[in-house]
Amino acid sequence: MNLNRFQEHSTLGFVDWSLRGIGQVVFQNNPLSGLIILAAIVYNSWIYGLILVVGVITGTATACILLADRSLIRNGLFGFNGALVGVALVAFTSEDFRRGSLPSAHMFIYLVFAAAMTSIVFSSISTLLAPYKVAALTMPFVLVGWLFLFAVLRFSSIEAGPLSKPVSPDQYELVTAYVLPTWYMGVGNAIGQIFFQDNWIAGYLILVGIAINSRISAFMALTGAVVAEIVAMAFGAPEGAIRDGLYGYNAALTGIALGGFFLVLTTRSFIYAVFGMIVSTWLWASVAIFLAPIGMPVLTSTFVVVTWAMLIGQYGFKSLIPIPPAEATTPEEGRSRHLSKT
Amino acid sequence: MNLNRFQEHSTLGFVDWSLRGIGQVVFQNNPLSGLIILAAIVYNSWIYGLILVVGVITGTATACILLADRSLIRNGLFGFNGALVGVALVAFTSEDFRRGSLPSAHMFIYLVFAAAMTSIVFSSISTLLAPYKVAALTMPFVLVGWLFLFAVLRFSSIEAGPLSKPVSPDQYELVTAYVLPTWYMGVGNAIGQIFFQDNWIAGYLILVGIAINSRISAFMALTGAVVAEIVAMAFGAPEGAIRDGLYGYNAALTGIALGGFFLVLTTRSFIYAVFGMIVSTWLWASVAIFLAPIGMPVLTSTFVVVTWAMLIGQYGFKSLIPIPPAEATTPEEGRSRHLSKT
Amino acid sequence: MNLNRFQEHSTLGFVDWSLRGIGQVVFQNNPLSGLIILAAIVYNSWIYGLILVVGVITGTATACILLADRSLIRNGLFGFNGALVGVALVAFTSEDFRRGSLPSAHMFIYLVFAAAMTSIVFSSISTLLAPYKVAALTMPFVLVGWLFLFAVLRFSSIEAGPLSKPVSPDQYELVTAYVLPTWYMGVGNAIGQIFFQDNWIAGYLILVGIAINSRISAFMALTGAVVAEIVAMAFGAPEGAIRDGLYGYNAALTGIALGGFFLVLTTRSFIYAVFGMIVSTWLWASVAIFLAPIGMPVLTSTFVVVTWAMLIGQYGFKSLIPIPPAEATTPEEGRSRHLSKT
Repeated sequence: MNLNRFQEHSTLGFVDWSLRGIGQVVFQNNPLSGLIILAAIVYNSWIYGLILVVGVITGTATACILLADRSLIRNGLFGFNGALVGVALVAFTSEDFRRGSLPSAHMFIYLVFAAAMTSIVFSSISTLLAPYKVAALTMPFVLVGWLFLFAVLRFSSIEAGPLSKPVSPDQYELVTAYVLPTWYMGVGNAIGQIFFQDNWIAGYLILVGIAINSRISAFMALTGAVVAEIVAMAFGAPEGAIRDGLYGYNAALTGIALGGFFLVLTTRSFIYAVFGMIVSTWLWASVAIFLAPIGMPVLTSTFVVVTWAMLIGQYGFKSLIPIPPAEATTPEEGRSRHLSKT
Repeated sequence: MNLNRFQEHSTLGFVDWSLRGIGQVVFQNNPLSGLIILAAIVYNSWIYGLILVVGVITGTATACILLADRSLIRNGLFGFNGALVGVALVAFTSEDFRRGSLPSAHMFIYLVFAAAMTSIVFSSISTLLAPYKVAALTMPFVLVGWLFLFAVLRFSSIEAGPLSKPVSPDQYELVTAYVLPTWYMGVGNAIGQIFFQDNWIAGYLILVGIAINSRISAFMALTGAVVAEIVAMAFGAPEGAIRDGLYGYNAALTGIALGGFFLVLTTRSFIYAVFGMIVSTWLWASVAIFLAPIGMPVLTSTFVVVTWAMLIGQYGFKSLIPIPPAEATTPEEGRSRHLSKT
Repeated sequence: MNLNRFQEHSTLGFVDWSLRGIGQVVFQNNPLSGLIILAAIVYNSWIYGLILVVGVITGTATACILLADRSLIRNGLFGFNGALVGVALVAFTSEDFRRGSLPSAHMFIYLVFAAAMTSIVFSSISTLLAPYKVAALTMPFVLVGWLFLFAVLRFSSIEAGPLSKPVSPDQYELVTAYVLPTWYMGVGNAIGQIFFQDNWIAGYLILVGIAINSRISAFMALTGAVVAEIVAMAFGAPEGAIRDGLYGYNAALTGIALGGFFLVLTTRSFIYAVFGMIVSTWLWASVAIFLAPIGMPVLTSTFVVVTWAMLIGQYGFKSLIPIPPAEATTPEEGRSRHLSKT
């Protein structure tokens, strides 16, 4: 089956780009991956599934209206930040974080604007980073998400209580008796938390969606989540926060990005990626503690900051082989392209 | 009358540049606009008028001493951040925000240093942004203002109470009964707040100063203030904050910047500008809530962030036509130059 | 004695680079300066001396493993941020700030990772700043230090009380009776605080280490500390904070950087440097007050921000003569090279 047959289709093209947009959250430019991930999210909550679709469509449509670069649109790159910001706004204003609630009309308009804004900010950050050959990653989502989340808590027409979900390790009881479910639920939830899904089975389904397109990426996401667990346990983190996957989702994303996607996979780059996973884990705790007093979640800020620092920094190191964003497809292709060159 | 006849004058030149500096706060490179705006501020409070003059002279003189680019100096670009930082430091340390108090000797030295620093930071940010063809806007004022405001509250030789002025929507009573004065006072105050003037008549006088140089800019400022009111009301914002113009001053500035000044005015760019106004309004509330615990005002940070994102971002969109900072004069000229080219 | 004879040595080279790394904290690319500074720190506390060595070795070794630019490594540029971050992590988690405590095994692993991370962030910031011809300064240390300090306070396996050291002027009693020791202890401590040494004699020993390599740099560090005292006293700062050298360490570093090191020393650049020292002093208070509620120290952030703003900004001013980072050695050489050209 040719997975790219709908990408240039006149009417189904938009569906293809949107599904790719969902896949791009975890760096998978593949509509089938997007579809499986969407199914995983609907399995947890149809509301989140719906909002994810609204977000990805809004982001992609905004780029179309503004006449953005066609190939970026067709690879889903204008959709993934919109998808995330939509889900985040609903997740952190719902009474039940796990399932989410349908947004009010005011909230709906608000999140559509936020998703549209991510496309503009994506273009902006991409322009700023172009000379340094690094991608915008999910920074548009993080920035727009923070800015829109603050305001939402105070408009009288949008009902929002305080965050119903703990967002920092010090909001958990300091239990450090780790059990088997801490492991398998923690790892699954870490993958799920990338999409704000507090459901470890959904997490493993998302992993399947990744593996469809790239086994290396799936392995790296898993490694990131496992490394995060080990680090968090070694440093005595609260069991509840580990089990909820909070320590692991940034490490999993850092793993995918550094583990073969933007750097050719070698023994050295694997060690570099593991270093990044460890730092991402600690820094999640750091940023969470910093943001807790103002009630803001970390989102994927730690992943973006660590990955940016390590990707921009590596241009000064001869031990690593970069893959520029424009050429990054899958770790498998990146590695074979490099081997065929040398 | 040739408005530019004093710009090259050996002795009156400096007066011309300083008046242009006042006008540049609202993007009007016109000494007469500066003079009318100064009159509007003196009408509200001669103290603010005096400090505005001290600030603009300090900023401009610093640039002269450091041998900055002559054409930038002559267009008032080294004065407007100094003018704003001076007024801000006095406004937020005065017991009566509305009229302001004469600064002490210590405070005076302090604000002169702050105004001088804005010229260095202006040069710095302009250098950083040069590759991206966007202007520094009022960011030098925002950064220097924040940094100098923090310290001022703790030096024993500078008497300063806590801010006497509410700086965040949650410091207002949640009244949502909007009346006629909410409208006309809110719009006037929004223009006034650009210069920290809590006086709606002064606001409309400033609008006259803008209209003298560019009717489109005046219309866009007005549109920004009105759009901000509509958005704030639709989302149930406190009546007092709307009436004080707090929701609107960033939207008004965003309106001027995006509405023909840095983008050729077309139907599409007008919609883009309105989108920016709406986002600026929400983000004012967001940043205000974020900064309230540390007692800091938003200043014009929201305007700068939204305008930067939308101007840098538009380089990736073919639907908009940018006007580089070096060529930006008035929306009218920008549009006619573009039409004569095509 | 040829001070550079070990720089290319196969086995002693690494020792040379590490000592230079210690010297580079205060811009002295000289192993003997590094050795004297190390001795000064050991004089105060052998624990800090040990950690300083661990930090500088980790940073330098990381750069070697990653195959970073050899000349940067050999000039100690990958070591100084690691050295600082190690000492900072120990200082702010020890019960006795003055002497420090030996870190636990967990803490030790943690600080080694932090020091390694500074080398990556150093490469990253250097890449970002390359087009603007400014150095990364101690920003890698500041960023990594902040991020790692936050998390450290919450891992149950790392015992850390609240900071035992006041980090903000409002944590001192507002005594403004300045006596002779306020002067000579304040100045000595300001130099010491660059390395977190609360010991004024150690401070003067560090000054000797600087003077060995550059008398101008030593003079500028001293001038910075003295100017900071004068400004702090003139504005009625708490005597304890002045005596502890807190107002002065950023000003001393700004003095070295702007006073001949990155700008050819002339009457104009000296005045520019003094302006920078004054602003650094105020801004230390500002950032300290901003960070106090979250219990974070200022580190050398004020120095970096002011120096960056003034160095990037000066490219717009014809009155100053820049020395690009790659050519910056000592103020003496910078000045004589410039004079020989004209």
